Amino acid sequence: MEIAVIGVGHTEFGELWSHSLLDLIAQAQLQALSDAQLAPEQIEEVIVANMCASQLLGQGHLGAVATDILGIQSPAFSVEAACASGAFAVRAGMRSILSGQATVVMVTGAEKLMDSSIEQVATGFMSASVCDVEHAKGATFPGLFAMIARAYLAEHRITREQLAQVSIKNHRHGKKNPLAHFQREITLDDFAAAPMIADPLTLLDCSPISDGAACVILSSVDFAKKLGRPYVTIIACEAATDKVNIASRSSIIELAATIKAADKAFAAANINRSDIDVVEVHDAFSPAELMGLESLGFFKPGQAAAATMEGVTSSAGALPVNLSGGLKAKGHPVGATGISQIVELTRQLRGDAGERQLKKAQYGLAHNMGGIGTSVVVTILAQRS
Amino acid sequence: MEIAVIGVGHTEFGELWSHSLLDLIAQAQLQALSDAQLAPEQIEEVIVANMCASQLLGQGHLGAVATDILGIQSPAFSVEAACASGAFAVRAGMRSILSGQATVVMVTGAEKLMDSSIEQVATGFMSASVCDVEHAKGATFPGLFAMIARAYLAEHRITREQLAQVSIKNHRHGKKNPLAHFQREITLDDFAAAPMIADPLTLLDCSPISDGAACVILSSVDFAKKLGRPYVTIIACEAATDKVNIASRSSIIELAATIKAADKAFAAANINRSDIDVVEVHDAFSPAELMGLESLGFFKPGQAAAATMEGVTSSAGALPVNLSGGLKAKGHPVGATGISQIVELTRQLRGDAGERQLKKAQYGLAHNMGGIGTSVVVTILAQRS
Repeated sequence: MEIAVIGVGHTEFGELWSHSLLDLIAQAQLQALSDAQLAPEQIEEVIVANMCASQLLGQGHLGAVATDILGIQSPAFSVEAACASGAFAVRAGMRSILSGQATVVMVTGAEKLMDSSIEQVATGFMSASVCDVEHAKGATFPGLFAMIARAYLAEHRITREQLAQVSIKNHRHGKKNPLAHFQREITLDDFAAAPMIADPLTLLDCSPISDGAACVILSSVDFAKKLGRPYVTIIACEAATDKVNIASRSSIIELAATIKAADKAFAAANINRSDIDVVEVHDAFSPAELMGLESLGFFKPGQAAAATMEGVTSSAGALPVNLSGGLKAKGHPVGATGISQIVELTRQLRGDAGERQLKKAQYGLAHNMGGIGTSVVVTILAQRS
Repeated sequence: MEIAVIGVGHTEFGELWSHSLLDLIAQAQLQALSDAQLAPEQIEEVIVANMCASQLLGQGHLGAVATDILGIQSPAFSVEAACASGAFAVRAGMRSILSGQATVVMVTGAEKLMDSSIEQVATGFMSASVCDVEHAKGATFPGLFAMIARAYLAEHRITREQLAQVSIKNHRHGKKNPLAHFQREITLDDFAAAPMIADPLTLLDCSPISDGAACVILSSVDFAKKLGRPYVTIIACEAATDKVNIASRSSIIELAATIKAADKAFAAANINRSDIDVVEVHDAFSPAELMGLESLGFFKPGQAAAATMEGVTSSAGALPVNLSGGLKAKGHPVGATGISQIVELTRQLRGDAGERQLKKAQYGLAHNMGGIGTSVVVTILAQRS
């Protein structure tokens, strides 16, 4: 099982007042076509990842819309799995190629949130919960994750100061990403001044609401070889689902779907955790990065915070995590996020990640999570040449 | 390329005031499991087709929700392609199996529309258009299709009386479907009294707004053989996309995506139009059945109306069309529709379609269309035993 990533596109992420959803889709797609040096007519299928456009903008049917933008008539549809929409769309595109039914597939993720009020966006995000239960009781995403965070921090005796190091690191990384929503560093003093969103999560523990789009073009490895341009390959893409309503889980601090998807992905890729050179983790909230890294098997439960303090997960550390800035600093345009992670790893593995390029990057891992750890995809990429 | 349909489930379609969206999903899924005699744990992936739940009910993330209902942790996501969501979800499920990444996949389509106002539903449907263009100008789906219908009827000199025969036939068929939204016949006199929705489309030319769910369980043919229960196979499932905005098409009476998808499907199945015994056509509006049948290649342009008058497409005719009652009489719970078509053909080909069972049914064809003929899937099923 090996699928090539032959082209990537990525808009800036942030408050993009002058760009519509369709503009952003077009930008990312045209960049990816240019990167792969392909004509639109060579795209055999278009898959779009998006979570909120029908609810917030009244615009659905985005597969057809994105295909129309290219001026082609290829089959097209949308994929949604809350904040994991992007990686599930990549997974669907891979299967179209693996099935022998297509050779070149474009996967585009996009989200336009800034045109809606914060109340509308918060309600949109809660469509990922069991609405009659969690949303109907007034829960919000930061609120639900705060409950998990309190239990997790208490269980492992992690302090707020330790937790803050996650966002501080990701902002330091994001400063080197010219497409990131926030390209400035933050300090422990900023945390002291940050408004509390849902105790223990301050504003600086929460990823922002962002607009943006990202695109990857996938193909068979044979096609990529013939194309003769730089490419990387996806050697595993595995998914799992946890109970949606967190009250029905046996433990709220175990990311069961992440554990399951990661175990399947490493088995499929036939490599070890220690082989991974670079990781993009779904840090929607800062504790999610720590819990994610532990559930992925990179650290024992409760030990990711100390590793972060020691710089293990920073750009100069043994396991650089979220070099892109992560969801916290790069931004989190929901449907684009899972695809943006693949774009970052592709660039790191191809060696064209600019100022944030790692010296050695042969294997990369992306962790994309939808809902409160509910829908998870773990993708492993390799540089084969 | 051959994938088995090993289990089907189908709720009643209609104004289901006492059932929630999740109830309907559960009903269809449990029926399909029972039909296949499988345990939930044997389902390796769940794909949900839905168009409007996030916009109308605030409930997205339906893949995870539907998986949760089964009490399993399999990978799960939603697929959306407007009214063709169902067939695109089946297509994605087939590709998961064809890729060798899964053996048994459940595909569930569901829609809950009656809990919303007619204005909300009409707005929801318009999310399938290019909203900034068509919806922003006040267009509605019946309005857009009426423009096409006027041009089509004028081009081929088809009268309203001829057109009425489509709905009259589908209601006659629907009377024999105990799950249909409308199980009563209508007459030419009823048309005279029917309110005009968008000239030339009366209320009786338009499919209703319905609640409902349908489910199919797909597997490899090897798995189906070992299971030892009745099954049929999908021997082709091909899709195409037309320009979304109808004003940008070179002809508004040519269903370009249907023509393209049908040609690809017959080539893939390696059979002729004359081999097809039973057809489910996407009759969202009565002229769509005539245009669909012509674009699928069963009749020359303009000749489907005369064939309908002559009874060719009725249950006793040479090419029975919409024995289920079609969208018009069976109902049109959007996300469920494409899957409901596969359920009907599976039953006809297995020989358990009850009072509406055909004597001979070896090959069946389903035509599922999203938007104004924009996103189209043509699926061909076969009875191999």
